[in-house]
This record gives sequence, structure tokens and C-alpha cells, in this order.
Amino acid sequence: MKNYVIKGNICYSKTSNELCIVENGYAVCENGICAGVYKKLPECYETFPNYDYTDRIIIPGLVDLHVHAPQYSFRGLGMDLELIEWLNTHTFVEEAKYSNIEYADRSYDIFTEDLFNSATTRACIFGTVHVQATHLLMKKIENSGIKAYIGKVNMDRNSPKSLCEKNVEQAFYDTEKWIMESQEFKSVKPILTPRFIPTCSDELMEKLSILQKRYDLPMQSHLSENLGEIQWVKELCPNTSFYGEAYNKYHMFGNECPTIMAHCIHSGEDEINLIKKQNVFVAHCPESNTNLSSGIAPIRTYLDHGIKVGLGSDIAAGSSLSIFKAMTMAIQCSKLRWRLVDKSLTALNISEVFYLATKGGGEFFGKVGSFEKGYEFDAVVIDDISIKCPQTLSVRERLERLIYLAEDKNIIAKFVNGRNLFEKVK
Amino acid sequence: MKNYVIKGNICYSKTSNELCIVENGYAVCENGICAGVYKKLPECYETFPNYDYTDRIIIPGLVDLHVHAPQYSFRGLGMDLELIEWLNTHTFVEEAKYSNIEYADRSYDIFTEDLFNSATTRACIFGTVHVQATHLLMKKIENSGIKAYIGKVNMDRNSPKSLCEKNVEQAFYDTEKWIMESQEFKSVKPILTPRFIPTCSDELMEKLSILQKRYDLPMQSHLSENLGEIQWVKELCPNTSFYGEAYNKYHMFGNECPTIMAHCIHSGEDEINLIKKQNVFVAHCPESNTNLSSGIAPIRTYLDHGIKVGLGSDIAAGSSLSIFKAMTMAIQCSKLRWRLVDKSLTALNISEVFYLATKGGGEFFGKVGSFEKGYEFDAVVIDDISIKCPQTLSVRERLERLIYLAEDKNIIAKFVNGRNLFEKVK
Repeated sequence: MKNYVIKGNICYSKTSNELCIVENGYAVCENGICAGVYKKLPECYETFPNYDYTDRIIIPGLVDLHVHAPQYSFRGLGMDLELIEWLNTHTFVEEAKYSNIEYADRSYDIFTEDLFNSATTRACIFGTVHVQATHLLMKKIENSGIKAYIGKVNMDRNSPKSLCEKNVEQAFYDTEKWIMESQEFKSVKPILTPRFIPTCSDELMEKLSILQKRYDLPMQSHLSENLGEIQWVKELCPNTSFYGEAYNKYHMFGNECPTIMAHCIHSGEDEINLIKKQNVFVAHCPESNTNLSSGIAPIRTYLDHGIKVGLGSDIAAGSSLSIFKAMTMAIQCSKLRWRLVDKSLTALNISEVFYLATKGGGEFFGKVGSFEKGYEFDAVVIDDISIKCPQTLSVRERLERLIYLAEDKNIIAKFVNGRNLFEKVK
Repeated sequence: MKNYVIKGNICYSKTSNELCIVENGYAVCENGICAGVYKKLPECYETFPNYDYTDRIIIPGLVDLHVHAPQYSFRGLGMDLELIEWLNTHTFVEEAKYSNIEYADRSYDIFTEDLFNSATTRACIFGTVHVQATHLLMKKIENSGIKAYIGKVNMDRNSPKSLCEKNVEQAFYDTEKWIMESQEFKSVKPILTPRFIPTCSDELMEKLSILQKRYDLPMQSHLSENLGEIQWVKELCPNTSFYGEAYNKYHMFGNECPTIMAHCIHSGEDEINLIKKQNVFVAHCPESNTNLSSGIAPIRTYLDHGIKVGLGSDIAAGSSLSIFKAMTMAIQCSKLRWRLVDKSLTALNISEVFYLATKGGGEFFGKVGSFEKGYEFDAVVIDDISIKCPQTLSVRERLERLIYLAEDKNIIAKFVNGRNLFEKVK
């Protein structure tokens, strides 16, 4: 079905401060694109088939700007360490298993199933260094109907041999082969994914830079997450004055190379200015930053600067795929930051985190994350009747409550770029 | 059934650092009391009927040391304010509705149902100022099989007239009447509940002190939660040198009056010493303390001092009844405190928060919260098969993961003091 109407309580952001709610209104989908939201359905759409979700809450699909698919297997485990020790002790050990395609198959089935059942419609996903396993992950996500950028990870130093590229020539060859083979997919696109500077040699970064230009690819990586990591990058890259420069000198830091940098907790003024100037997206992952004792990113500062920000689950440093949970924790962490670090930065509010989870992160995919006219039609329908209360709530209150309380069982339908992924019995 | 055996992976704390796991072992219940946990069932128990939960996880019932039942209606709502403004804007407005017994009936049905389905077997619950509604709440909790202390709230100043006691004589009369009427219950006991110093006059506290002695009652209240609140208490009680003294001068601060003080975020040295000396229980409510931007309590300090600590959901400043979530957030907040406030206090670990959620808080109820011999038999059976992963996990890892990921749907059986509350189809 290419053209249809969804009826329900439609909630979406125009800006971070403008949360629009149309009670029992109509969102119109025409060829996968939103033709607008209406309180009264215009005559021209009256012949369109109708999904009737009267009284339910309808929101744009949520966007996960930063998630590691192979780490989903150990979500909720091994959270007693800081970043570098955590990578060496838990993460690299697990990711090495993905050289075994049967293991990858079993694991990515679970990841894909849970992502499918969540409120997420778009994701930027890290695979592992392995071409075959990453291709399999892309295939599974493609088949699920979720739209995603997925990256074969590149890394060639400071990691176990089993996870390192053999040499930069092989890395170049493998990565190009993977990029070429990814052309078969429609909903899923490749994204360059150097793990982070400590595990990527200058030679590897140079090779990736060539591929970036050759195939005009976006990129995703990590930035200024942990104080020890930042110090390490300083030592590894003595000719850079801040962490972000180590990506920028290979022309992989925004502008012609659309870039997501996860975390940006400890970015200094120069780094923030470059992030802004070159339109780098910040993926804010509050649960991860808490679990790894990394700190709290100054998201208020980034919003004030007009920097592009979205939310990430950052599985498995974050334990949950739920972007609702990321919204809640973005508010909570911003409150603790206000209380404990800097009273000049006010806490984030409901309207702001809802924006970050939809239109904020969605912008990386184009016109995605809103029901404004011309946006790709991603929608999630939520039934909150199981969250009982004795009083009558406004739609705005119900939405607010869902940010704290929504579980996958509340999600009863999901649409991506117009395509209906599932409808559960109401 | 008074005597039986439960088989499964039995996990319980001896101390905050000693987490015992007996894989596919046997926990024996004799007349509501645990007769021990065995790897091989002793001959003398072989005739006992057997609940076979092989491969499932069995933990002591969780303890919620601080929860406001009437606030459950607005969980997840109105979290944009600090304590005093939050009370005036959201809480008092909602609690005033409980003068209407039909409203209370509807609301407390929902609260009781959700508490019943949770992993919580013991709770210390605030009602409202209303005698009739509080009695109704006690009746519902009694019928659910959960064991609880429940308090009619006392308050007579700095609050809306509709929520204040008419005068101290009436308060005394009402509270005594409520205490007397509470004698009909078996699983549910009354607890004195002066809301907190800012809403309780000296005269009211004096009257409650008389009732405390007359009926030998425990008490629960709030302490040193918010900096503005603490300053206010200083002004209201010029003759006290710290907040805790304002309870202590009425002999309601531990020792002969078993006492729970929620929060204790900003307690100074003298207050901490008195808490310790008089065996006051600290109810740590990390989600609440985050949502109201109150701060992060130094739980490591309290454990080091040997202070008694349990966890609280603190609905509705906390959004979730789940004590699993309280465990997760206790770890998370302690990490942020370590990172942002005080590097000398290491973060809490899995073993410690599991202890706090079971035996730590359970001690307020006597020998509760463990499967050690002689403890009241409170057990929760968890099926984690829906939390899929490709690798094989140890029982310890499965328990760790459940702290982050358990939902009510995973709880398939619950026992309180030997009584089976429910068994779901496995």
C-alpha cells in the first residue's frame, strides 16, 4: 500500500522547542512521503485507505544514531570497567567471535528481531571488522525493513591480532569489496567505520579517506568519550591540537563526508567549533556514558550552538536498545550535570529529547523524523492502555509518560518510509 | 502449603560482598521460614512437595523501602521541577484527591496490581493524610499477600489546607483511630509517617511522639534530600544543628523507634554519625534523586560506616516501581558521583546493589531478604529465556544481566513468607 491515512493522536517536533500534537488527527502517506498532518482530512485524501488508530499515540519512528550490533549479545554484562579496560576485557573478546559466521548468524538474528520490535525505524550500526559477518548483518536488517547505515569496522592497532586488519592493503581491498557488495541493498547503506583513533593507524586512515572520496560515503566513529582515551590520542597524534583533528586531517570530519561522532563528552572549545563548522552530528549516548563512568556530555551547549545532535543506545555500553530510555536518561543526566557540574546549563526537557530522538537524529538520513510535509513517512503507533491510572490525561501527558514508561509491548504498529513493518492486534 | 522445596538457580546475599549462587539447588521452606539452601536435597526434606524451576533464577523477594502509593497515578509525569516546587505543583494537588474514596479505590487498585506483579515482596509505603483512603490501601495490600508497613501521612503546615490536619488534637485522634483500626491486618502494619519537617509543626511531632511510645511503632520520613529543603529546615528549627536533630528531639530517629529516612543525599558528618549510632535505615532512591535534580547520595560512605541501607522506588519522583531499576540506577549514579564529585568513593557493584535490594532493606522487616537459614521465605522466580543471546552465560552473568534488563513479564512466581502469591505458566 503506497498511499494511506493514519488516524490517531499525532505527535511530532518542528524544532527542539516546538512539539506539535494533533489529537485524533490524520497523517497522510503518499508514496512513502508524509503529505501532512490534518485535524480534518482534506477531501482529496478521502479515498485513501485508513489505518484507524483513534486514541492511540502516533510518533515518528525513533532514530538510533549509534549502536554496536555484535555487542548486543552481552548487553547488561560486564559494566564494571572504564572504556579502554572494558574494550579489552569484554568487547574485543566478544567481537572476535564474529569471524565464525554461524555465531554471527545466531547473534544478528537476535539483534535484528529486537530492533524490529522496538520503536526504532532508523539506525547507524557498527558491525565488526569481519566482511562476511557485516554483510550478513546488512542482509538481515535489509530484510527487516528498518533503514540503516551499517559499517564494517576498521582497526589495525592496539587491539588483539584476531580483530586487526592483516595490513592496510588488505584492509583497503576488504573494505572496498564490502562497499561494492553492499550495493545490492536498498534500505541499508554502507558507512565508513574506523573504530576510533587509538585502533586506527595513519596509513589505515589514509586508505579510508581514499575510499570515502571514491564512493562518496558517510562515516561514523567515536570522539572524546573518556579522559584516558583523550590523553592516549594526544600521545598517538602529537601533531594534532585536539582529538577531532585526528579525523579531520583525513577529511573525515563532516561537510563533504557526513559524519557521526559518538559521545563528545569532553570536547574542548576548538573541537566544538569544528564540530559546528563542519556539521558533524553528535550521537549522545547517556546510558553508555554513565555505565562506563565516562561523564555527561554538555548537550545544552551543543543545542545552543546549533550543533546537530541525535541519541544513541550505544549497545552494549548501553544496556537497552530503547531510544525511549535514551530520552529519559538524556534528561536525567542533564539534571545531574546541572546539579553537580555546571549550573549555567539548564536540564533538557521533554520537547528537547523528543526532538533529539526523532528529527534531531533523523536529519542524518535526510528529511526523516517528523510528520512535516515532505518527510519520509516513518511512524510508530503506541497503545498505552496497559499503563493504567485513575485520572484522565492529556495527550501531551501521555506522551511525556511514555518517554519514561514505554516498553516494546506498547508498540502496536510500525511504518518505515511508508512501508508497514507490522501491525499487532489492538 | 506450609512446607515445600523450590528447585532452581538460587542467588542470595550473605553480606554486601558475598553473593551466593547455588546452581540448580534446593531452597527449603518450612512454615514460612527458610530451612536452608542445598546443592543436594537432604533426606529429611525428600517428602516435601517440590516446585521445580530447574534452570530458572530464584532470588529473595525485593524490598522497596520508600514508595508513595497515591503518587503512582502520575508516575512519569511532571518531572521538570525540584523538590519543593514539585510537591506544590504536582504532588499535593494529586494527593488532595484521596479525600474522595472512589478515586482512592480506583487508584490503589492499580498500584496494588502493579506491585503484586513486580518482584517486590516487602514495601514501606506512604499513603496520604486521609484515614479512610489509607485504611483502604492497607486492605488492598493485605489482600495481595505483600507484606508492608503503611503510613497515614501527617502534615499540618506549609501545604494546601485540604491536605493539612485540621488541628493537632484532631490529628492525634485520627492517627490513633487509624492505628487501632489497623490491628485487623496481619501482613500489613502501621508506621508513623510525618511527611517531613517542613510540613510538620513541633506540636504535631510531639503528638506523634506520644503515639510512637504508646503503640511502639516504627516511623518513616524524609531527610536531607534537597539543598533548598535543608536550608528551610534550618530556618524552621533554629535550635537544631542539623536536619536529623529535628526528628531526634522527638525521639523518632532510630533505636527504640525503628526508622527509615529516605534520601540522605546531603547529610553532614554529625548527621551521618547520628544515623549510624541510632541504627536509622537509609532508603536510597537514585531515580528520584536524579529526576528531582536533588543530587547523588554517598552510599559508599554509608556502607563503609556500617549504616543500614536499602533501596526505594520513591514513586512518583521515581517513575518505576521496579527495584531492579533502582539497583541499576544505584550503580549508575554511584559511577557518576565517582566521576563528577568524589574520586575517593568507588562505584557500587552488582553484589552490593543486590544486597541493598534484598537483605539490606529486608532487615527493616526482621530476618528478611536472604535464603540463609531462619530467614522468612520470600522468593521470586525469574525466567530470562526471552532475553536471548548467542552465547552460554553463567548463572552469575544471567543475574547480572537481569538487574539491567528484567521486566515484570520475566517474573513467573512469587512467594512471601512462604505463601505462594502466583505462579505463571512457564
